[in-house]
Amino acid sequence: MRTDLCDLFGIDVPIVGFSPSEHVVAAISKAGGLGVLGCVRFNDPGELDAVLTWLDHEVGDRPYGVDVVMPGRVPTEGTPSDLNELIPPGHRDFVERTLMRLGVPPLGVDESSRAGVLGWLHSVARSHVEVALTHPARLIANALGPPPADVIEQAHAHGLQVAALAGRADHARSHLAAGVDVVVAQGYEAGGHTGEIGSMVLIPEIVDAVGGRVPVLAAGGIGSGRQIAAALALGARGVWMGSVWLGTAEYQATQALREALLKAGSGDTVRSRVYTGKPARLLRNRWTEAWNDAEAPRPLPMPLQNLLVSRAHDRLMASGDPSVVPMPVGQIVGRMNEVRPVAAVLADLVTEADETLARLAKLT
Amino acid sequence: MRTDLCDLFGIDVPIVGFSPSEHVVAAISKAGGLGVLGCVRFNDPGELDAVLTWLDHEVGDRPYGVDVVMPGRVPTEGTPSDLNELIPPGHRDFVERTLMRLGVPPLGVDESSRAGVLGWLHSVARSHVEVALTHPARLIANALGPPPADVIEQAHAHGLQVAALAGRADHARSHLAAGVDVVVAQGYEAGGHTGEIGSMVLIPEIVDAVGGRVPVLAAGGIGSGRQIAAALALGARGVWMGSVWLGTAEYQATQALREALLKAGSGDTVRSRVYTGKPARLLRNRWTEAWNDAEAPRPLPMPLQNLLVSRAHDRLMASGDPSVVPMPVGQIVGRMNEVRPVAAVLADLVTEADETLARLAKLT
Repeated sequence: MRTDLCDLFGIDVPIVGFSPSEHVVAAISKAGGLGVLGCVRFNDPGELDAVLTWLDHEVGDRPYGVDVVMPGRVPTEGTPSDLNELIPPGHRDFVERTLMRLGVPPLGVDESSRAGVLGWLHSVARSHVEVALTHPARLIANALGPPPADVIEQAHAHGLQVAALAGRADHARSHLAAGVDVVVAQGYEAGGHTGEIGSMVLIPEIVDAVGGRVPVLAAGGIGSGRQIAAALALGARGVWMGSVWLGTAEYQATQALREALLKAGSGDTVRSRVYTGKPARLLRNRWTEAWNDAEAPRPLPMPLQNLLVSRAHDRLMASGDPSVVPMPVGQIVGRMNEVRPVAAVLADLVTEADETLARLAKLT
Repeated sequence: MRTDLCDLFGIDVPIVGFSPSEHVVAAISKAGGLGVLGCVRFNDPGELDAVLTWLDHEVGDRPYGVDVVMPGRVPTEGTPSDLNELIPPGHRDFVERTLMRLGVPPLGVDESSRAGVLGWLHSVARSHVEVALTHPARLIANALGPPPADVIEQAHAHGLQVAALAGRADHARSHLAAGVDVVVAQGYEAGGHTGEIGSMVLIPEIVDAVGGRVPVLAAGGIGSGRQIAAALALGARGVWMGSVWLGTAEYQATQALREALLKAGSGDTVRSRVYTGKPARLLRNRWTEAWNDAEAPRPLPMPLQNLLVSRAHDRLMASGDPSVVPMPVGQIVGRMNEVRPVAAVLADLVTEADETLARLAKLT
């Protein structure tokens, strides 16, 4: 299974794999796909720099990419402490009460000194871009539409391709106009930020909107070789997969997260604003359900909601309770039934996709 | 493009086409697919009998099917007038106020003598089955899970295949246990009653759950040949398409409905309980949005909600206003951009599916 995406990036199979884990990213790139490192967790640009240095060494001449979270419109923002003042006390009370009610213990002294995740802030996302440009990354992807024009220019000047996620055809047309090189058509089924149009409908719609000018990657609901073949049938040149790698040996999940992922079926996710303030698909559990209570406040807009719940996320994850882990994941979580190395997962994807293409060839 | 579904039903292409219009159904069957007539609109079994007699004559020896709406659990029900007493007056007031506010005129004397749609009642659905069994229909499909055991037995005794829609893998397993012959895996994208799992994820999940024991048809988001090829890649033996026929010349749409369908994009539908009491995907418009107002009551359970809004639906449809038409339709409404005959639509589906299979064959 080869498409022109393989030539564009110098990869063996048209599979782009997103992960916040550098171990997963390295394994994907080494196995013939394009690993893309999610940067939102790096508060400190120096830490990202060190991780990319490790990645450069690990993958050798294999290509990789980075993914940042940069809203198209630059929000008014200040320091985290300024922003914290914008969070209503009632919201803080609700979070604290809910954690108590769910039996989630406070963090230990060491853990509570962390600052929470700041990568949702525009200034922090820009620092990620600056660091990435000093490394041989081949792709910079933005999870929230096209990056600002100067970021695209800089990326192009450094020889990077720029990708942007699109949940509607008009998003894809804006991305093209902004100079984006690869459009990721991400359907409703996807984990994390996602829209309301299912992949079956969205992918060919965006392929048609883009009209062959740039490659379209299919995202959302892709977790098996049959789904890769279906994405190619819909006109995508390759796939963008994120959730599937959460179930690999290289992803350093807590025991509670691993249990929750292995147990969840395709119906056990929810699209909700509680994680970042924008609709994102998460594991549905006692924490996400608590925000449906009659007394629950409405989630705050980005970036305030994530500032509000960031410390709660640390507590929920540290609790060791699988029924409260805060985790973005797509509907393909239902296929995650055992923990395996990235290379084995990727090899199976390719085998099943090839078998599917061979099966389809017999129907003509 | 042929699968074993073609042999099972004696059809040329593995396309099953659902429509409430006998004209559409006849045209699908005559063009080589399997037309399936939606029966919910027939209050009078005699009327259905007359329509099926017309259909028998029209399609000759071409196969066709019927679709009924029969909840798995038989609800307590009485006459429509008994049921009407269960509708809270506040709900009636809201409907009346909303129609006024939206500028929807009352019906004329002739129109207002109609009884509303009763096919959602179990007793009426059973009368549809009895009528269908006296005609050479080849398939009886139930839109709400497996029909009752005696209906399946009767259908089998008359040589009919029985199909049931499934929105989750456990539904499909129940259908198999009940003796259903064909499972329709219907994803979130679909028009009408639909679940929360997208087609890309649901179809292979149900194919795996069924394990080859019966054929799986893919429904939800199928409106083009690429989408048919994708469904086959996911393991379906054929497709079940409903929305696409609303845009054909044979479907006798009002001018307002036609305008609304041609104008709507893939993002202009909503999954809502306002049509029947169960979640169903509809055109999103001023009528569906009115039910999101702070003062709006929660929709009633099936069958009360449809009794509540049935007369309102007649008024909304008769109003001639495209911005209020009450219409179940899937996300592929975004592809409906011109009105064409069924045979031309079907021919294009087959051509594009064949082209897609040929394109995929080159990737191996």
